[in-house]
Amino acid sequence: MTHPAPPSADAGLLGPGWAGSDAAAATGDAAFLQALLDAEAALTRAQAALGLAPEAAAEAVTRTARADRFDADGLAERARSGGNPVIPLVADLTQAVGTEYGPFVHRGATSQDIMDTAMMLVAARTVDLVLADLARTEAALARLAAAHRDTAMPGRTLTQHAVPTTFGLKAAGWRSLVLDARDRLVRVRTSLPVQLGGAAGTLAAFSAYGAPDATALPEAYARELGLAAPLLPWHTLRTPVADLAGCLAFTAGALGKTAVDVLTLARTEIAELAEGSGGGSSAMPHKANPVRATLIAAAARRAPQLAATLYASMAAEDERPAGAWHAEWEPLRDLLRLVGGAARDAAELAEGLRVDADAMRAHLDLTHGLIVSERLSAALAPLLGRARAKELLTELARRTYREGRALGELLAEQPELKDRDDLDPAELTDPTRYTGSAGALTDRALERR
Amino acid sequence: MTHPAPPSADAGLLGPGWAGSDAAAATGDAAFLQALLDAEAALTRAQAALGLAPEAAAEAVTRTARADRFDADGLAERARSGGNPVIPLVADLTQAVGTEYGPFVHRGATSQDIMDTAMMLVAARTVDLVLADLARTEAALARLAAAHRDTAMPGRTLTQHAVPTTFGLKAAGWRSLVLDARDRLVRVRTSLPVQLGGAAGTLAAFSAYGAPDATALPEAYARELGLAAPLLPWHTLRTPVADLAGCLAFTAGALGKTAVDVLTLARTEIAELAEGSGGGSSAMPHKANPVRATLIAAAARRAPQLAATLYASMAAEDERPAGAWHAEWEPLRDLLRLVGGAARDAAELAEGLRVDADAMRAHLDLTHGLIVSERLSAALAPLLGRARAKELLTELARRTYREGRALGELLAEQPELKDRDDLDPAELTDPTRYTGSAGALTDRALERR
Amino acid sequence: MTHPAPPSADAGLLGPGWAGSDAAAATGDAAFLQALLDAEAALTRAQAALGLAPEAAAEAVTRTARADRFDADGLAERARSGGNPVIPLVADLTQAVGTEYGPFVHRGATSQDIMDTAMMLVAARTVDLVLADLARTEAALARLAAAHRDTAMPGRTLTQHAVPTTFGLKAAGWRSLVLDARDRLVRVRTSLPVQLGGAAGTLAAFSAYGAPDATALPEAYARELGLAAPLLPWHTLRTPVADLAGCLAFTAGALGKTAVDVLTLARTEIAELAEGSGGGSSAMPHKANPVRATLIAAAARRAPQLAATLYASMAAEDERPAGAWHAEWEPLRDLLRLVGGAARDAAELAEGLRVDADAMRAHLDLTHGLIVSERLSAALAPLLGRARAKELLTELARRTYREGRALGELLAEQPELKDRDDLDPAELTDPTRYTGSAGALTDRALERR
Amino acid sequence: MTHPAPPSADAGLLGPGWAGSDAAAATGDAAFLQALLDAEAALTRAQAALGLAPEAAAEAVTRTARADRFDADGLAERARSGGNPVIPLVADLTQAVGTEYGPFVHRGATSQDIMDTAMMLVAARTVDLVLADLARTEAALARLAAAHRDTAMPGRTLTQHAVPTTFGLKAAGWRSLVLDARDRLVRVRTSLPVQLGGAAGTLAAFSAYGAPDATALPEAYARELGLAAPLLPWHTLRTPVADLAGCLAFTAGALGKTAVDVLTLARTEIAELAEGSGGGSSAMPHKANPVRATLIAAAARRAPQLAATLYASMAAEDERPAGAWHAEWEPLRDLLRLVGGAARDAAELAEGLRVDADAMRAHLDLTHGLIVSERLSAALAPLLGRARAKELLTELARRTYREGRALGELLAEQPELKDRDDLDPAELTDPTRYTGSAGALTDRALERR
Repeated sequence: MTHPAPPSADAGLLGPGWAGSDAAAATGDAAFLQALLDAEAALTRAQAALGLAPEAAAEAVTRTARADRFDADGLAERARSGGNPVIPLVADLTQAVGTEYGPFVHRGATSQDIMDTAMMLVAARTVDLVLADLARTEAALARLAAAHRDTAMPGRTLTQHAVPTTFGLKAAGWRSLVLDARDRLVRVRTSLPVQLGGAAGTLAAFSAYGAPDATALPEAYARELGLAAPLLPWHTLRTPVADLAGCLAFTAGALGKTAVDVLTLARTEIAELAEGSGGGSSAMPHKANPVRATLIAAAARRAPQLAATLYASMAAEDERPAGAWHAEWEPLRDLLRLVGGAARDAAELAEGLRVDADAMRAHLDLTHGLIVSERLSAALAPLLGRARAKELLTELARRTYREGRALGELLAEQPELKDRDDLDPAELTDPTRYTGSAGALTDRALERR
Repeated sequence: MTHPAPPSADAGLLGPGWAGSDAAAATGDAAFLQALLDAEAALTRAQAALGLAPEAAAEAVTRTARADRFDADGLAERARSGGNPVIPLVADLTQAVGTEYGPFVHRGATSQDIMDTAMMLVAARTVDLVLADLARTEAALARLAAAHRDTAMPGRTLTQHAVPTTFGLKAAGWRSLVLDARDRLVRVRTSLPVQLGGAAGTLAAFSAYGAPDATALPEAYARELGLAAPLLPWHTLRTPVADLAGCLAFTAGALGKTAVDVLTLARTEIAELAEGSGGGSSAMPHKANPVRATLIAAAARRAPQLAATLYASMAAEDERPAGAWHAEWEPLRDLLRLVGGAARDAAELAEGLRVDADAMRAHLDLTHGLIVSERLSAALAPLLGRARAKELLTELARRTYREGRALGELLAEQPELKDRDDLDPAELTDPTRYTGSAGALTDRALERR
Repeated sequence: MTHPAPPSADAGLLGPGWAGSDAAAATGDAAFLQALLDAEAALTRAQAALGLAPEAAAEAVTRTARADRFDADGLAERARSGGNPVIPLVADLTQAVGTEYGPFVHRGATSQDIMDTAMMLVAARTVDLVLADLARTEAALARLAAAHRDTAMPGRTLTQHAVPTTFGLKAAGWRSLVLDARDRLVRVRTSLPVQLGGAAGTLAAFSAYGAPDATALPEAYARELGLAAPLLPWHTLRTPVADLAGCLAFTAGALGKTAVDVLTLARTEIAELAEGSGGGSSAMPHKANPVRATLIAAAARRAPQLAATLYASMAAEDERPAGAWHAEWEPLRDLLRLVGGAARDAAELAEGLRVDADAMRAHLDLTHGLIVSERLSAALAPLLGRARAKELLTELARRTYREGRALGELLAEQPELKDRDDLDPAELTDPTRYTGSAGALTDRALERR
Repeated sequence: MTHPAPPSADAGLLGPGWAGSDAAAATGDAAFLQALLDAEAALTRAQAALGLAPEAAAEAVTRTARADRFDADGLAERARSGGNPVIPLVADLTQAVGTEYGPFVHRGATSQDIMDTAMMLVAARTVDLVLADLARTEAALARLAAAHRDTAMPGRTLTQHAVPTTFGLKAAGWRSLVLDARDRLVRVRTSLPVQLGGAAGTLAAFSAYGAPDATALPEAYARELGLAAPLLPWHTLRTPVADLAGCLAFTAGALGKTAVDVLTLARTEIAELAEGSGGGSSAMPHKANPVRATLIAAAARRAPQLAATLYASMAAEDERPAGAWHAEWEPLRDLLRLVGGAARDAAELAEGLRVDADAMRAHLDLTHGLIVSERLSAALAPLLGRARAKELLTELARRTYREGRALGELLAEQPELKDRDDLDPAELTDPTRYTGSAGALTDRALERR
């Protein structure tokens, strides 16, 4: 049974950041439908495992619970009536399973048990994909950081050259954010729970259907699905959703940092970095757009607000809220998908990044040596006194700008400094000699696994 | 040529608020693809209208520009390379048009000209659908307000009964928000412009291809598409997108107000309102869930953050930003779709709403007359003096609560008030006699068209 | 009576974007307290104007309603009990007015009448300040656009040089956004209404206190305060707040566009623009940070989310919501203050902006002529055929990059183009000759007032 | 030296949710100024500890670094020039310390080192206050849950009665969210790091001033302040800020859940819960508004969007971003303050909450027994067959509604069920006998510490 996509189906025409990715496949309607069916099948199996349903029923439901046997689009429309797709799906699944074992479909559960569990399954599967791409990303960044441990470049603050830094330290910093994201994702990933509570979270129906201790059921359910067992039903205790919101927004931001740096450093005037395969333009053959960074940056702009919607849904009244829960579904999927796409792009970006160390070196001279004025302040004060040192530097800075001459040169001409053995103007104004602890910090950061 | 939906296609399984709506059809990938093609065809026609392309080219492109001839899913994947779907679409369209007229496809334009114009087309079409549903909604609310002009009910503040109001005034208030939304949508709808600027917004390529006055082209283009002509290319002057964000977030909030009121008043304990056809529950046959209000409320929770992403994209650097623009596409579509679905639900909700005037009347007595204590303060002060009036009311309020007796009854027993002709305790404590100007305000509000 | 600031008082230590501005003074606690008092005094005056209170009471209240007579900090703490500051303020004001006229303070009103009206007063006063700074800003931008009508510079898309544009067009675009913001602010400014509805929006208490037609009171109230009269009490019909949210977020975004462009173009490597007086750095005397642009950009990052909170508050249940209303106060003030500060900074930025036309001209050559490759495509196709033209350009672009030679030079050497009279390689590859309609568009944009 | 508060100073007139709280005192301008001074003093001490500065200098700076000696308001205004308050503060502090030791003030540091460190100090201090209030809250909720372990009440889903639950389980659920918040806050609290990197995060200036191994300095600095030492300078690696955003938004949402439940259950028609001391209304003496819940709910509406702004600031370009950093300061303080106030209110709410178990019991009968229809489905199916059981229940449900008679009564009259020993209609339809595992789940949840 195949179904044509309705005209409203989206496959990512407006989402080049995620279209075609594994995360897209793991989060689409078909994948979500399969997760709903997986949740239903596991529920019957869990009941069978506890002797509350025949093994044959569990087998029948499991065999039947295949997404390609159901009509996702039709379910979407029929979901309108009750407000969620589980209601029509249970009807269809029960019918498909047949008269004998149909009654064991969804027995004792509420729609939210299945929706929430399916969402956790989809989240778990997608987070695993994200983690794989983060692993590629951090490995590539580690290589870059090691290779460019001593590649000096301008440190930039508020858009202006400040003092030198190294590309190694920059890449190591990017990587440390990726590792921070990984750690947060892993922690949340392993905590993702099944949902099982019945109509109002008391597990009452399971007892009504004969369970001697219904509180054993969530554990059995969790075992079937490889998810965690919750301490309590969490229909309106939305910790798992909020935790996902947080770690996904974090990941988008972590990758976004690399992206905005690449976008800056790939500018035509800077060109210290370039993407491995920049996006072309038919009309302008010279353009090599940093498309991967652009799409990651776009994801980083969207993720925080999607997470905000999820955090706001924590204020969920009663045993099932009228709106707060329904408002979670698409934003959580969007977050998973966006971050999944961004991680894919980040891996490609990091693996293909081209570094122009010569450009970095050349830019260090753009301020004619003023980029090391901080160092000169420190060095001249003991020789000339703080007041005179400051006065001299201010004057030389002005001349450097006006005359376009190097600060080191002007310094060397100063009579008061001329014959000092304890001062080497060339060394003092060499920006590659003023990268501080960048190398040591890079080494330390790379030790983190 | 038909294409199977890829596993990542969404048709609304997680979006019962919009699945199956006209707005869904108007905003899906197929609709957006058609809008892109409409934009391309209109561009060639506009050039033909100004003598810059052969009429036959315009006809050929227009004839070819049919979404069912192109592969939306494939375009979505190929969009990754350059970061937007126009690049591969232009290639496919050019090829489909053929050697002779292919060169007139997209001539002089940039991808953003087509993307932005298509977005405005989709927005215009969807806003028209929203306006139609708002018209249904306001008409139904007007009928409710008129019918219940004098139906007294408790006014509630901070969840507590305050003083009486009427359901007519409440419905008139809902309607006034719908009209406010309509006015804002209409204003923005009529201002939606085509986009045309070429690679960096200077229209230079059109001159290069021979236009004597390229600034005439946007006007011609606008005429072809029934959109407005912009004063300037707005590649990074995002007024149209921000205006859409604002009026759509406004509309979601306007409908959200009705939804949260219905959710409150439909509670089992209140039950003053019920949806025409509440969503059922298989396990609990007595439940009639306010599903329409729930889904509208969910949309109202999501829209503000989607709008925030769009407002943030106004800070778009250069002549085309790397990320801010790309971050607009899905949120703007989501907003259009959510609001389109919410307007559909609002129309159904308003048209089917069942009002239980008896329940409203009964609830006015829940506080045993204390709901009119404000009135008594005003009435007794001139008779007893402010201080004594206040003292007496405080005492009676305490007794009312403790003894569960009606305030009017206790009042009638007061010796100091007993034989006064100028005081009618029954009238004074009749909550239906203390609705103030609710009727007059309702009349006034209903005069607005 | 003066009061020391409590340790929790903020005067902007974390808000350099707004500290010390007129908008800060117009929105601080003292200003808000005065607005609350203005609202109370106007209410008594409006009642006096309709004969519902003695003139002497109106005078007494008006005379007493001066912020310096009340303790804002103490009111803030006492506001906890009832959840808003009007409750303790009414007590203090009533006492200060004295026994005779005290009873006419706040008579018939509810706290929200006063809070909302005060908020509208504060908004009106602050928006007026914003409009004045926007007027300065647009005038300065108009001067820049006119002065640089023909100053060619690289047009940049996705961070890369695309085709030339002019600084005049860029400045004209910035100005058009400022005018768009102005138009939206003016429209909302003139619509800001007083709030008056009494306990549940029915105006009932005013009738209880003797008003023959209580619906006349809001109009009288509006006249006293110079605000608009609302069609209905809007305690839970939050159009005015949502409209403010929209136009303020818009303004922040509009100014944010200029800011991000200045930040980009002020980069050390680009340096086409500089702020009049860049912020210095004690440690690095050469730095001239674009501080105004930085602070505007920071405001533009915050405003959308503040507006989102306000849009979300439209879904306000009942006749006064428990939370949605309270969540508006600080975000609306923050928005007013941030936008007020950003407008001040924008005016200073625009008035002081330094433009380096030579740097712009020099950067046009950074791609060795490839910045006009679009033009060459158009020009060569008719001469050589599309296929050959494309092939030739691709080859020359490659050589240009590899050899670092100008595209015009390579073109001139091509045998197939050498002796053509209809082709002037130097003119064709002069980027200042390929600014398209930039001048005409600038002229047109500057006609807008 | 005291300074009058400027007219723009805020002490919480618009923030009754936080005004007067310990969190307000810990986050105000004076507290932040002290934190800045603490950061400066600790920096000099850390340098002294490593032999890089005289002990006497450390003592002098520490002695001088008292907020009451500096003018926060003046600093706020002077912060405009460079964009942050550290620049003028360093000037004032250096001068106050005097000629001899002044040079050791701020030596080698950048403004961001001090701002970020101060923010972490303020965050640490405020989070400690929040944790104390959460401890009070969870203890009170534990008592409520234990006391009401078996207090049956209606479980409500989508605003409608579903099946019974207990107030014990509800309170245990609230508590579990509080514990989740606590765990997340504690984890982040212990990870909050000092910031130290110098102008571009390389620690270079410290070496220039003579440190043999500048990487030892952050550890020494962390020891002085009781914060963590970071792996890398995090000027643009914003993990600490994003982590705070996440755990604070989580806490606001966790408390918001309790708040929205209290708001619902305190409604006049429901009145199962009441706040210990509800906020009064002068005009309406009968009102006992749930003010604590209202203010918590308001905080929960604002926190997610504030967190979103902070997450978005992770995408911070270069070594110090122009805007993303500046956009963090006020939102982070607002979050700390809002959550601090909400935790205070939550503790008061939980400690004072009044539970009306009789009202809960009475409401269980509102649906005339239909609240246990789920149980009947399960019980009757084996007796009558699924089809007949369903048919019978549907018919009886209809009659129950129409006739207003109890479902148990109608059931007992059914001939087919009349003489069955295995069926006790009264027991079967007793809602207090259908609370499932609520008691066991409550016990389990209370074991968590």
